[in-house]
Amino acid sequence: MAVRVAVAGASGYAGGELLRLLLVHPEVEIGALTGNSNAGQRLGALQPHLLPLAGRVLQETTPDVLAGHDVVFLALPHGQSAAVAEQLGPDVLVVDMGADFRLHDAADWERFYGSAHAGTWPYGLPELPGARNALEGSKRVAVPGCYPTAVSLALYPAYAAGLAEAEAVIVAASGTSGAGKAARTNLLGSEVMGSMSPYGVGGGHRHTPEIVQNLSGAAGEPVAVSFTPTLAPMSRGILATCTAAARPGVTAESVRAAYEKAFADEPFVHLLPEGQWPATASVYGSNAVQVQVAYDESVRRIIVISAIDNLTKGTAGGAVQSMNIALGLDETTGLSTIGVAP
Amino acid sequence: MAVRVAVAGASGYAGGELLRLLLVHPEVEIGALTGNSNAGQRLGALQPHLLPLAGRVLQETTPDVLAGHDVVFLALPHGQSAAVAEQLGPDVLVVDMGADFRLHDAADWERFYGSAHAGTWPYGLPELPGARNALEGSKRVAVPGCYPTAVSLALYPAYAAGLAEAEAVIVAASGTSGAGKAARTNLLGSEVMGSMSPYGVGGGHRHTPEIVQNLSGAAGEPVAVSFTPTLAPMSRGILATCTAAARPGVTAESVRAAYEKAFADEPFVHLLPEGQWPATASVYGSNAVQVQVAYDESVRRIIVISAIDNLTKGTAGGAVQSMNIALGLDETTGLSTIGVAP
Amino acid sequence: MAVRVAVAGASGYAGGELLRLLLVHPEVEIGALTGNSNAGQRLGALQPHLLPLAGRVLQETTPDVLAGHDVVFLALPHGQSAAVAEQLGPDVLVVDMGADFRLHDAADWERFYGSAHAGTWPYGLPELPGARNALEGSKRVAVPGCYPTAVSLALYPAYAAGLAEAEAVIVAASGTSGAGKAARTNLLGSEVMGSMSPYGVGGGHRHTPEIVQNLSGAAGEPVAVSFTPTLAPMSRGILATCTAAARPGVTAESVRAAYEKAFADEPFVHLLPEGQWPATASVYGSNAVQVQVAYDESVRRIIVISAIDNLTKGTAGGAVQSMNIALGLDETTGLSTIGVAP
Amino acid sequence: MAVRVAVAGASGYAGGELLRLLLVHPEVEIGALTGNSNAGQRLGALQPHLLPLAGRVLQETTPDVLAGHDVVFLALPHGQSAAVAEQLGPDVLVVDMGADFRLHDAADWERFYGSAHAGTWPYGLPELPGARNALEGSKRVAVPGCYPTAVSLALYPAYAAGLAEAEAVIVAASGTSGAGKAARTNLLGSEVMGSMSPYGVGGGHRHTPEIVQNLSGAAGEPVAVSFTPTLAPMSRGILATCTAAARPGVTAESVRAAYEKAFADEPFVHLLPEGQWPATASVYGSNAVQVQVAYDESVRRIIVISAIDNLTKGTAGGAVQSMNIALGLDETTGLSTIGVAP
Repeated sequence: MAVRVAVAGASGYAGGELLRLLLVHPEVEIGALTGNSNAGQRLGALQPHLLPLAGRVLQETTPDVLAGHDVVFLALPHGQSAAVAEQLGPDVLVVDMGADFRLHDAADWERFYGSAHAGTWPYGLPELPGARNALEGSKRVAVPGCYPTAVSLALYPAYAAGLAEAEAVIVAASGTSGAGKAARTNLLGSEVMGSMSPYGVGGGHRHTPEIVQNLSGAAGEPVAVSFTPTLAPMSRGILATCTAAARPGVTAESVRAAYEKAFADEPFVHLLPEGQWPATASVYGSNAVQVQVAYDESVRRIIVISAIDNLTKGTAGGAVQSMNIALGLDETTGLSTIGVAP
Repeated sequence: MAVRVAVAGASGYAGGELLRLLLVHPEVEIGALTGNSNAGQRLGALQPHLLPLAGRVLQETTPDVLAGHDVVFLALPHGQSAAVAEQLGPDVLVVDMGADFRLHDAADWERFYGSAHAGTWPYGLPELPGARNALEGSKRVAVPGCYPTAVSLALYPAYAAGLAEAEAVIVAASGTSGAGKAARTNLLGSEVMGSMSPYGVGGGHRHTPEIVQNLSGAAGEPVAVSFTPTLAPMSRGILATCTAAARPGVTAESVRAAYEKAFADEPFVHLLPEGQWPATASVYGSNAVQVQVAYDESVRRIIVISAIDNLTKGTAGGAVQSMNIALGLDETTGLSTIGVAP
Repeated sequence: MAVRVAVAGASGYAGGELLRLLLVHPEVEIGALTGNSNAGQRLGALQPHLLPLAGRVLQETTPDVLAGHDVVFLALPHGQSAAVAEQLGPDVLVVDMGADFRLHDAADWERFYGSAHAGTWPYGLPELPGARNALEGSKRVAVPGCYPTAVSLALYPAYAAGLAEAEAVIVAASGTSGAGKAARTNLLGSEVMGSMSPYGVGGGHRHTPEIVQNLSGAAGEPVAVSFTPTLAPMSRGILATCTAAARPGVTAESVRAAYEKAFADEPFVHLLPEGQWPATASVYGSNAVQVQVAYDESVRRIIVISAIDNLTKGTAGGAVQSMNIALGLDETTGLSTIGVAP
Repeated sequence: MAVRVAVAGASGYAGGELLRLLLVHPEVEIGALTGNSNAGQRLGALQPHLLPLAGRVLQETTPDVLAGHDVVFLALPHGQSAAVAEQLGPDVLVVDMGADFRLHDAADWERFYGSAHAGTWPYGLPELPGARNALEGSKRVAVPGCYPTAVSLALYPAYAAGLAEAEAVIVAASGTSGAGKAARTNLLGSEVMGSMSPYGVGGGHRHTPEIVQNLSGAAGEPVAVSFTPTLAPMSRGILATCTAAARPGVTAESVRAAYEKAFADEPFVHLLPEGQWPATASVYGSNAVQVQVAYDESVRRIIVISAIDNLTKGTAGGAVQSMNIALGLDETTGLSTIGVAP
């Protein structure tokens, strides 16, 4: 019997990507689709690439509309998920694609998001140590942020294996879809094409505490994180360049061995052969993660580079992967490691 | 039992896109992959987006390597298909993604391609009147060019219904992947980003006689074609703007009615609701065609605009669609109408 | 003594481009800069590329602020220029970069712009027959639209020389800056990168009557125009593909001769050598126009392709060129034919 | 009397940009233009954006052709400059835009460039402490690499003021023109559009020793450098994110004060107001450098971000700036701080 799924927030980029994946998921039946300011509109006008759903009409996000589904995905602005989730029963699997339930530390939440902390749910990055156990059978899932996905997958093996000092310096470039679909002058095509620019520099980006939380968890001690995000002239993709000083005794071989071991059984994370580097184009539209690692002996630093599609593995694909685990399905059901390139 | 498929020319853009589609085709097993100058290399180095095939090694394109397959796709430079096809038995389905067997007129072939005409095979644009009949059970298929696909689907209903005068004026914009993967200065990213430019102006493009052939076939009389292709700063997609003078008595309603009728049962061609226009982003990576039609009363012209992905519906997706028909499978097997956007 | 210039509407793309040009104009001193919703803000925050003006603060658009200048440029939304212009004395040169004073026909204006017609000013496309005479010494100039600039320069020689039938079919691609700086979802980078799409199809674009006016003027008879604009994934540039049926007796040689003659003394319009085609990248940031012409004998059509920078020759550069003529300066003062490429 | 200038290597991107700047330089007369494989071709075919030079024909790079000029610019592949320079007299100003004379350390040169070290010339980054003195009156100038320009300008004030520990972690994104105009598959538009990817990771990039040299010079002690370059989907621009641990006692105020002081009199380097961040679009086609600095107290790191146009300030503009100093002209002659945006 098909899993009946509702999507709250179907008109944005996260919601659209989720529907693109759910349409080819063999165990899923797409139920209610909601959107607040866009309620009443045809999905064909809002998401013209989803032809099989072109005739569907968005409804209001109300408890009645969301009732009667096995899974409800929340693709809502930060801070709005808790109110909706409260109205959904404990037997419904609720997958929050917003930030509301990602952080353990209430003070961090309040400082970076400016409202009361709603709580903490099992964290939907299955590759992290211990994460799959927490997700299995869970009825609540907090989907990670896109940058934390790219960065944590790049660095957790180094920290879990005790190879890196507890300070990471990270610079990541993201496509513009990570900034969402709301109309803003600085995101106009005229502004972003042909331009690279940073934002949230100096620890100000909301994803910083989430990265700290993940890396500290892997290291078993607090890891300090210098994180600089930049906006790149492309729609999709994150390229994360992550570096940390190596602990004494580390060699190029021990670093590579740790990564080979960490990813050996991971269905979506691919350590590239030596000499080949990740490119966001290679994972376009796929749930795959490309990783490469180097050890720069002249400065004794480990450099790890990861490429993901911010909307797929970074948001909606990660959400489906976690849903699969929570429901007891094969983790890879309905997900692909094949990119759309060139 | 799976259909065993070989791909000759697996290192280029057409071959790579074909493999991307075959990997998710439920009836197909991917057999030999060949490439001449790249024989001996890992596919993971040449097509890094096709992770499930990363470990496969390209072989030489020889009869022995291609033997033992039910289907052989030829993704070779123009003029090289005939020699390979001759060596394949009459029971093997040969799908030529090059231009060699598209044109009926040997003189046209020789004028535009500069070598001897190899012959004419059933034409793999199933939507054209009569095309499906010719493809069913055929052991040879000539896949159309990307521009002829976009343009013929846009205009054949107007000609088949007798609505348009026998002269069409067409301007189309294509992504750079249509120009192939061979390194050329004028196709460097530095040259194409931020630039639009035409080429093959004044009837000089090789796809012109193919468009003439298709439209004349639909009209039942010779149709003159003014075709101007332009290169757009994007990797994929064709947007074709196709116009023709309306015959007397034509109205906006009669034009729309003809298009609604023509596409009513087509699984891949979607006439958009009035007021919505095609965008290449909406069909990115999909086999869908978006079409919209207008009648400009002030100049009494019919204007039809179509959007396709040049590599999918315009090349590899069209090839798979025709393979499905030739093999007696459901025409849509393994193909999608869902674009990857934004 | 320097010409003192004010710019009303300095925060948008047209105003920003105008300031970029005025900063290097040797006869000009930049006076008041105004902007309504942005009044009070530093120009450095709004136009960060104009470093020499970073410290200037925008003022309100009032008669007092605009008083005391020799020239006032109006870079305002359509329909707002007349009210401002009325308050400026008859001795001030007023250059309107909006559409308000471009059309002769009040009915056309009202149909396409939806408000009362404000009047008609000398038309700032100096290359058109008779245009320079009207501009010399004039105190009012209506700057043409960007598409009409590209299209009229491409086709007027064919009409002026009696080579073309009175129906033109035009398809043009524009960069996104032509759509302005107001935040709209369909102009987000995520939407436009990687996509081509049409708009205003079927005669609906506001620039159609302006093109008709110009071509009819050159032909001395009414010319019907089928005009389809498309949005291209680039910030700047227009590539216009313009075709018309050739009159009897026309040859490739007679077409080329007409264009060589028309542009022989034009400082900004360059007919390319045979075999070379325009590219928008080549005129990026410059006031140059690249034109090439072909005669397609198989369909007896003349095809003319032009490339401009929509913000420079298509808007602000054209405005400066007309200002130079109106003030009696050398027409090329402060303007460049050197593009920024690659 | 005009300075007579020759350009050896006028067909590539560096040579083209140099000519774009020399065309508007008031003291310069453009003399011989050479190119080896392209000798005999019209510049209009090779650099179609340089309309005023369209009719010039490239000559062979020989001593006779280069004789009789006051200044000779060498825009040649690495390793070819020394042989040409030897043949030019000691009174000719030779400006090498290649890497041949940048490094002090012969071993570094040989390790990274694989040939014998040609020597060391005065280094053309005038903003570095002491650099202007060395350039004044010099007859030989080594133009810096594009990455070293962006990175050294970002970090030298922190090192010169003793604020930063002697290890820098740098990630920079460059437009594709930095990789030159030679046709290579991985630089095709189809490959680079929509993609970010790293290269030369782990200290392997040739610009690393040049960065080390500059920062160590500013610090007065050896500075270790972890440098990761990435390729961004744009033609021009470098965005460099440069970080270093702060020395004890450093505060946000002391960092900002050091940068304000360092750049106070620099005509091309602009420290942005607090809250505003560099964007490569803002310096497109200009010789300006935008810099912003932050102090991240949570990790005690200084983060400096700079944006340049890799072809202008990063190559040809820097070359002209150094030529001006060497010739005793005003340093800013012919150079602009106005970007072409949007």
